[in-house]
Amino acid sequence: MLNWITLLGLTAALLTTISSFPQAIKIIKTKKTEDISLLMYIILTIGVFLWLVYGIIIKDIPIISANVITFGIVVSILSLKIRYK
Amino acid sequence: MLNWITLLGLTAALLTTISSFPQAIKIIKTKKTEDISLLMYIILTIGVFLWLVYGIIIKDIPIISANVITFGIVVSILSLKIRYK
Repeated sequence: MLNWITLLGLTAALLTTISSFPQAIKIIKTKKTEDISLLMYIILTIGVFLWLVYGIIIKDIPIISANVITFGIVVSILSLKIRYK
Repeated sequence: MLNWITLLGLTAALLTTISSFPQAIKIIKTKKTEDISLLMYIILTIGVFLWLVYGIIIKDIPIISANVITFGIVVSILSLKIRYK
């Protein structure tokens, strides 16, 4: 059953998952990435990828779902950062 | 016992936790945050805070530890973003 504690965890997961989305939009609009740390997005991409592998191995749908979305956004930001260096 | 799957999850957690650190260092050095999305760090701060509350409620040490560190870094970046707008 979905109690308020699970709902709190799901809200937390949703927010941290979608948080990078406005950054991707901002870069697409401005084509500027100078102030963004390349190292942050390299570490984050590897980290999210490992979360995804971990989720697949332990067959955890919330971990898989959250990290598939985050991986897509984070890889986009990393590509844009390299492109608009 | 610490098997390779747990170790994979811990590595993933460590990387996503420390990933924002280079961004904070970069801002402190350059004092520039123009290309960084304010909305991203507002959403991320709330999300990480909710993860922390969730971790405290379910008494999960890995969730609490990871999110205490992330919260500190993310709040720092948010403050720097507001300061060097």
